[in-house]
Amino acid sequence: MPGVKRLAILGSTGSIGQQALDVVRAFPGKFQVIGLAAGKSHGLLREQIREFKPEMSYSSAKLDFTYGGEFSSMEEIANHPQVDLVVLATSGTVGLQPLLAALRAGKAIALANKEALVTAGDIVTGEAKRYHAQILPIDSELSAIWQCLRGERSKPRRLFLTASGGPFYRYSQSQLSNVTVQQALRHPTWKMGKKISVDSATLLNKGLEAIEAHWLFGISFDSIEILVHPQSMIHSMVEFQDGSIKAQLGPPDMRLPIEYALSYPERLQNPNLPRLDLTKTHSLTFEPVDQDRFPCLRLALDAGKVGGTYPAVLCAADEIAVDLFLQQRLHFTGIAGIIEKVLEQHHNVLHPSLEEILAAEGWAREIALQVARTEAIC
Amino acid sequence: MPGVKRLAILGSTGSIGQQALDVVRAFPGKFQVIGLAAGKSHGLLREQIREFKPEMSYSSAKLDFTYGGEFSSMEEIANHPQVDLVVLATSGTVGLQPLLAALRAGKAIALANKEALVTAGDIVTGEAKRYHAQILPIDSELSAIWQCLRGERSKPRRLFLTASGGPFYRYSQSQLSNVTVQQALRHPTWKMGKKISVDSATLLNKGLEAIEAHWLFGISFDSIEILVHPQSMIHSMVEFQDGSIKAQLGPPDMRLPIEYALSYPERLQNPNLPRLDLTKTHSLTFEPVDQDRFPCLRLALDAGKVGGTYPAVLCAADEIAVDLFLQQRLHFTGIAGIIEKVLEQHHNVLHPSLEEILAAEGWAREIALQVARTEAIC
Repeated sequence: MPGVKRLAILGSTGSIGQQALDVVRAFPGKFQVIGLAAGKSHGLLREQIREFKPEMSYSSAKLDFTYGGEFSSMEEIANHPQVDLVVLATSGTVGLQPLLAALRAGKAIALANKEALVTAGDIVTGEAKRYHAQILPIDSELSAIWQCLRGERSKPRRLFLTASGGPFYRYSQSQLSNVTVQQALRHPTWKMGKKISVDSATLLNKGLEAIEAHWLFGISFDSIEILVHPQSMIHSMVEFQDGSIKAQLGPPDMRLPIEYALSYPERLQNPNLPRLDLTKTHSLTFEPVDQDRFPCLRLALDAGKVGGTYPAVLCAADEIAVDLFLQQRLHFTGIAGIIEKVLEQHHNVLHPSLEEILAAEGWAREIALQVARTEAIC
Repeated sequence: MPGVKRLAILGSTGSIGQQALDVVRAFPGKFQVIGLAAGKSHGLLREQIREFKPEMSYSSAKLDFTYGGEFSSMEEIANHPQVDLVVLATSGTVGLQPLLAALRAGKAIALANKEALVTAGDIVTGEAKRYHAQILPIDSELSAIWQCLRGERSKPRRLFLTASGGPFYRYSQSQLSNVTVQQALRHPTWKMGKKISVDSATLLNKGLEAIEAHWLFGISFDSIEILVHPQSMIHSMVEFQDGSIKAQLGPPDMRLPIEYALSYPERLQNPNLPRLDLTKTHSLTFEPVDQDRFPCLRLALDAGKVGGTYPAVLCAADEIAVDLFLQQRLHFTGIAGIIEKVLEQHHNVLHPSLEEILAAEGWAREIALQVARTEAIC
């Protein structure tokens, strides 16, 4: 079919992957899924293959059902000549190799994976530039900035990343230490996966977004401001050289930035998506963020500023710490403690290779578990 | 000088004209004033000619001082081959002929004059299209919409015009009838000329902006929403087909939209301009507009929807009514009454010629004065 964008969705069974398929369902004449890959959730992947009949599929476990061919790696799907756009919705650094393969094949990449830009932003943006591959961010804040920059020629003066503040923004220090897993998974405005819900509650996620924005838009950390905006209607803002500011608003539904990345440069009318009703009375508030009560944010921003392997260590240590919290083996406020101790022990490698990044991650996971054991919390 | 934009500023002694010259002063290497024209304020025009040394100047009265040549009409300056950009900052329909002359010469026009698009939108946008002349709006709301549309390919779904609500938005009907001239000239957020300050207070101005937006961006009136936003930080918003909304924010300083229109497609850093400090705590509110207490808005929107010569009649009747109010010969609430009565008596001409528009205006001024006399308010 001419004019149809052929998609490979890596990480199709996760929250973003499923919502990407939801967008595809709404526009059968616009998109065709020709590749699906997932690590876990074998049953769901099987259903997706049955529905979308992709020519290529991959799973970390052996598939018992395919439509076209079963492929031996995500890279093979990511750089396949038939693919127009790769949706990278895997979590963790498992998506790094397929991302680089896609970039080197000059593909457009709808990027939902945070770790890629956070841990390897230098390499990823370098390869994108070298192979003229376009990175289309899916994250709502990065999509907002990207939308605000659309058509602008000059470099922005400042970015304003908005943060809902998560479910605990008004909590005192002592209230924070008693937060339960159930509470942490109940985000006030967004429906998200478990890991990212906790990262939103600690505000670490906002620090990761700042690192992503730094790499994706070539902006120094000094020019990135974080604003708490509890209504989550403004998804981020850009200030230009002349002092003019653009903001992007939308309903808190990930399908909107997903659809934007998939359909770019078009904008498609999707009747399934909610709309913001601005004709009703609204009040939008902003306030500076409090980094003292949310040390994970400070740690992430510091790691981003120093760069090298620090952001990879931050991510890996956070992964272990959040996992321990979800297992109810660590207090909510202990997450920052573990990350900080691991970062303190790390010998940074500046301009790391992919191997050095992955090695730093492995090291950080181990040390994080050690720290947790030493602190007698496991 | 290569790369220097050569400007003709028509209406240079008015509020917008003076602020445009202020922008020019900030960028001596970017702009060169080669034409100045003004109707009144002879002394100020003389000073401006002394300072900017324009090659062309025009005044409705004979000039006793010029630098280059004195021209016999604004049209001659507007379509002069040396001019790159015409700033049309005259008020009233006196700017219509020079605007059309500039458009027919394919000039870029930074348009501050409201009446041009309101009374002759069909002709003006038609000529702009035919001669590939670009209209760059200077009004803050229209500039905001234009900035939000920058780089977008698809037609917007809706425009949200924001209104500060003016100084009387919380006034009751009886409070409104006792409003003084002094109160009406004290706008809460913007510093403006007298006529436009009163039009802002009656909200008629917001109706005129809706008519301008209709013509400039090709949007039906049903897709234009007016929102009261007392903080005047968001200058307007655009909703796209996918439900994404872009907003433009900035300090309430007309020099920002003027500079944007003058420097477009560049954005220039102007140290003289104030900046919005979003890192402080802010609350932005929106509410639907109350057309019952502000009948001028309803009258303007209705005139815009019907089209033809109605908008010209609206403007002319308003001009007379506001003038009577400023002379303290008419109550604030009497402004709408006069406009309504004049509109009621008008026989509309659809797709009017320029002559028919000017004739309708002349007729409306006369009838407005008649109505005022009949009602024994003069």
